[in-house]
Amino acid sequence: MIFRQLFDKDTSTYTYLIADEKTKEAAIIDPVREQVDRDVKLLEDLGLNLKYAIETHIHADHVTGGGSLRQVLSDTKLVVNAASEADCADVLINDGDVLKVGDIEIKALYTPGHTNTCTSYQVDDMLFTGDTLLIGGCGRTDFQAGDAGQLYDSIQEKLFSQPDSTRVYPGHDYNGLTMTTIGEEKANNPRLGNSKPKDDFVALMDGLKLDMPKRIKESVPGNMKCGLAA
Amino acid sequence: MIFRQLFDKDTSTYTYLIADEKTKEAAIIDPVREQVDRDVKLLEDLGLNLKYAIETHIHADHVTGGGSLRQVLSDTKLVVNAASEADCADVLINDGDVLKVGDIEIKALYTPGHTNTCTSYQVDDMLFTGDTLLIGGCGRTDFQAGDAGQLYDSIQEKLFSQPDSTRVYPGHDYNGLTMTTIGEEKANNPRLGNSKPKDDFVALMDGLKLDMPKRIKESVPGNMKCGLAA
Repeated sequence: MIFRQLFDKDTSTYTYLIADEKTKEAAIIDPVREQVDRDVKLLEDLGLNLKYAIETHIHADHVTGGGSLRQVLSDTKLVVNAASEADCADVLINDGDVLKVGDIEIKALYTPGHTNTCTSYQVDDMLFTGDTLLIGGCGRTDFQAGDAGQLYDSIQEKLFSQPDSTRVYPGHDYNGLTMTTIGEEKANNPRLGNSKPKDDFVALMDGLKLDMPKRIKESVPGNMKCGLAA
Repeated sequence: MIFRQLFDKDTSTYTYLIADEKTKEAAIIDPVREQVDRDVKLLEDLGLNLKYAIETHIHADHVTGGGSLRQVLSDTKLVVNAASEADCADVLINDGDVLKVGDIEIKALYTPGHTNTCTSYQVDDMLFTGDTLLIGGCGRTDFQAGDAGQLYDSIQEKLFSQPDSTRVYPGHDYNGLTMTTIGEEKANNPRLGNSKPKDDFVALMDGLKLDMPKRIKESVPGNMKCGLAA
């Protein structure tokens, strides 16, 4: 398997490239519009064919590169959770659905709570958690149908139920960390680790007084159009 | 093996953590002074003992965190290439020397050219190339005893001689890429790939008219003191 983690410094967003070395089929998770030229060049350099551009959710902090990638690489199918009802997407994905990239299986785990469209993806022992589970943190729950109790359940039931050695690749990190493991987050995550009770988590999340993301007014409608102008 | 790539956004510097899962011995390559608290916390969270803080060279663009790490974690030995004559270091390393972290062997490959202290490190099928070989690029050769012809020879003889599948982890990337392979760089590196002749490379490097790094006046003397005040 070819695997690359990519970073957008401006929004601290991680994008992931996953490809089958034999068939050259590839998927990209959470591409960023401003990085599409970089991503297309990388695909070309590696001789890969982009089959899927996959969103972990409708983002509020950056605009997806999915639509632009499909314009350049016309075989690409855009994948977004079904709850988004984003009619620009080619695949509206549901919990348990599996996407295939060559012999690689990418399994969707519906993990709402940060937003109602949040989906984590599992590939072997790797979890791509979007903004559901971050390194030493989690996504906020105060817009886009976010719900702290639901986020707690998603993380406990769908993610913390995985083996401790499972590698976790998040949608962002703001401190220069690139990955974590389920075991580390269960032990050390200050919001959720050490068997924090649900009520305490909900109270913590509901008590956060955060400014709105700078780009939310551009990003959410932009992402509902897969990053393409209406 | 525990392996973590870490990023300093301000200087686009990559730091690497390598550790033996059984013995809990760890090494860190190219720590950044401003990130020492993050790195100490990560070592603690993972239950690791830092045995070595290793420099790929005397950096001109950031100050090392090596000295600060040794102040906090007193078992840590600082490793710098012997050509630096940095008397703050515990190990002055030479080509072919091997450091052991548990069962993991970290082999020094002297790769001068960007500076006269540049050392790449090999761990299994991974190469930590510092600023010698970058993703689609290489370090500049116009200060700190840099030499374009020597850089060409270092890359061709010590790095491009490795198997194509060898994973390359550089000291920086400014485009959000995190790694490459020897095969990709041999094929695609615009400065060195596709069997570029030495004379062409030297002419290209000698023709670059680059501004001095912003922090060179602070960084080089600071790094000769392992990041500690004189």
